[in-house]
Amino acid sequence: MRFELYYWPTIQGRGEYIRLALEQAGAKYIDVARRAESSGMGVQAMVDLMNNNEAPYPPFAPPFLKAGELIIAQTANILLFLGPQLGLVGVDESSRIWAHQLQLTVSDFVTEVHDTHHPIAGGLYYKDQKPEAKRCAADFIETRLPKFLGYFEHVIECNPFGDQFMIGAELSYVDLSIFQIIEGLRYAFPNAMKKTEFSYPLLLDLHHRVALQPRIARYLKSTRRVPFSKQGIFRHYNELDV
Amino acid sequence: MRFELYYWPTIQGRGEYIRLALEQAGAKYIDVARRAESSGMGVQAMVDLMNNNEAPYPPFAPPFLKAGELIIAQTANILLFLGPQLGLVGVDESSRIWAHQLQLTVSDFVTEVHDTHHPIAGGLYYKDQKPEAKRCAADFIETRLPKFLGYFEHVIECNPFGDQFMIGAELSYVDLSIFQIIEGLRYAFPNAMKKTEFSYPLLLDLHHRVALQPRIARYLKSTRRVPFSKQGIFRHYNELDV
Repeated sequence: MRFELYYWPTIQGRGEYIRLALEQAGAKYIDVARRAESSGMGVQAMVDLMNNNEAPYPPFAPPFLKAGELIIAQTANILLFLGPQLGLVGVDESSRIWAHQLQLTVSDFVTEVHDTHHPIAGGLYYKDQKPEAKRCAADFIETRLPKFLGYFEHVIECNPFGDQFMIGAELSYVDLSIFQIIEGLRYAFPNAMKKTEFSYPLLLDLHHRVALQPRIARYLKSTRRVPFSKQGIFRHYNELDV
Repeated sequence: MRFELYYWPTIQGRGEYIRLALEQAGAKYIDVARRAESSGMGVQAMVDLMNNNEAPYPPFAPPFLKAGELIIAQTANILLFLGPQLGLVGVDESSRIWAHQLQLTVSDFVTEVHDTHHPIAGGLYYKDQKPEAKRCAADFIETRLPKFLGYFEHVIECNPFGDQFMIGAELSYVDLSIFQIIEGLRYAFPNAMKKTEFSYPLLLDLHHRVALQPRIARYLKSTRRVPFSKQGIFRHYNELDV
C-alpha cells in the first residue's frame, strides 16, 4: 500500500516519528504537504482535507495518514496502525499494547518539551512568554528530563529479551522515537545533555545503533529529513539551556 | 474477568475515564488504591507495583490496569484495550481506530486543562505559578476551549449514523469521556461555561443522556464517585474563570 502522510512541511515536529517509521521500513509514501501545490498537493491539500466539513471522520490536527479509505490522526495512533504492517512491532497483542503505551509516554514527553518554550499558550509567540519559558525549561531540565529518560533507560534495562531494544529482541517504532528524542534534546539543550546524558548509556547506545541502520542513515543525509529549527518542537534557545 | 484499577484514590483525574467505562459496562473491578491498606491494597499497593524494579513492563504513572497477566498503563491505551471487551466500541478496526483517535484528543484536552493551573511545572504548588496560571487560563478559555469543544461538536454533527453519539449508533467509551469533560469544565469554569456552552447543543444533549444511563446515574450518586476538588485536574479557582 502507498501511504499519504499529511504534516507541516517545514518542521520535524510530531510527523517525524511517522516519517522515521516509514523510512526504516522502506515503505512507499508521499509526504503530501512537502510536494508542489501545482501538482494538487502541498500545504493547501492538507488544509483542504482538514477543512472539509462534509467528511465524516475529521482529524483534529496534523499529522494524519491516508491509508486506502482510512484517514488516521494522532501520532501514536498512526504508529499503532502502521507498526504491524511495517514489521516494526511484534504481532501479539501484549507487544502491541506495550509498544503503544511507551509511544504514548513519548507523546507526553514531546508535549512537555514543546511547553518549555510555549508554557502559556501555543498561539502566542515565544517572545511573549519568555520569562515563563525560562522557569518552565529550568524545571523541565531539573526534574522532568531525568524522570522520563530515567524511565526509558529502565525500560531497556528490564527488557526480558536483552538490553538492545525498548521492546523484545528486534527494532520497533518505539526505538526510532527514542532516537528522535535524543537527537532533539541534543539540539535543544546541548549543555544540559552534555552534563547528564552519560547517565543513560543504554539510550545512547540505542540512539547510536538506530543512526547506523542503513535506511535511517540514508534518510538522515537526504533532503527528506527536515532540519531542526526554531519553528519545531525541539528548539534551541540559549537562555533555556543550562 | 475481574479487573484491578490502580489510580490515586482521592481524585477523579485521568482514572475517571476508566472508572466510567467500567461502571457503564457493569464490569467487575477493584479500585485498588481506594481499598484498605490492611487488606494489602490501598495506595501502598499501587506504589509497590510502580517501584518494583524487577517487573519487566513498568508503568510510567497511574492509571494502570491489571487484567490477568497484563499490566496496561496510559488512559487511552487502557480504554483501547477495554473498549471491545466491555462492549463500549464497535468491533471493526476502523471504529476502534476512530474511537481511539478521539480519546487521544480528549487526553490532549485534559492535559491542557491541567496546565491552566500548572503551566510552569506539575511539581510546583499552584500558589507558586498563579500569575502564569491566570494568563494560561485566559488563553485557554478564549482559544483552546472553543477549539476543542467545537471540534467534538462537529464530530457528532457529521457522524454518518446520526447525531446521538460521537461514534456510530451506540454509546461508546468516548461518549463517557465527553460527559466527564463537560462535568469537569462546568465545575472548573462555571462562568465561562454559562456564557458559551449553548454553542455546543449536541455535546450538552450527549452529556444529559449519559447522565441518565441507569448505571452511570447510580455510580454518580454512590461513594465510588470521588467528588471534584482542588486536587484534581479540573479545579475551580475564581481567579482563573471569567
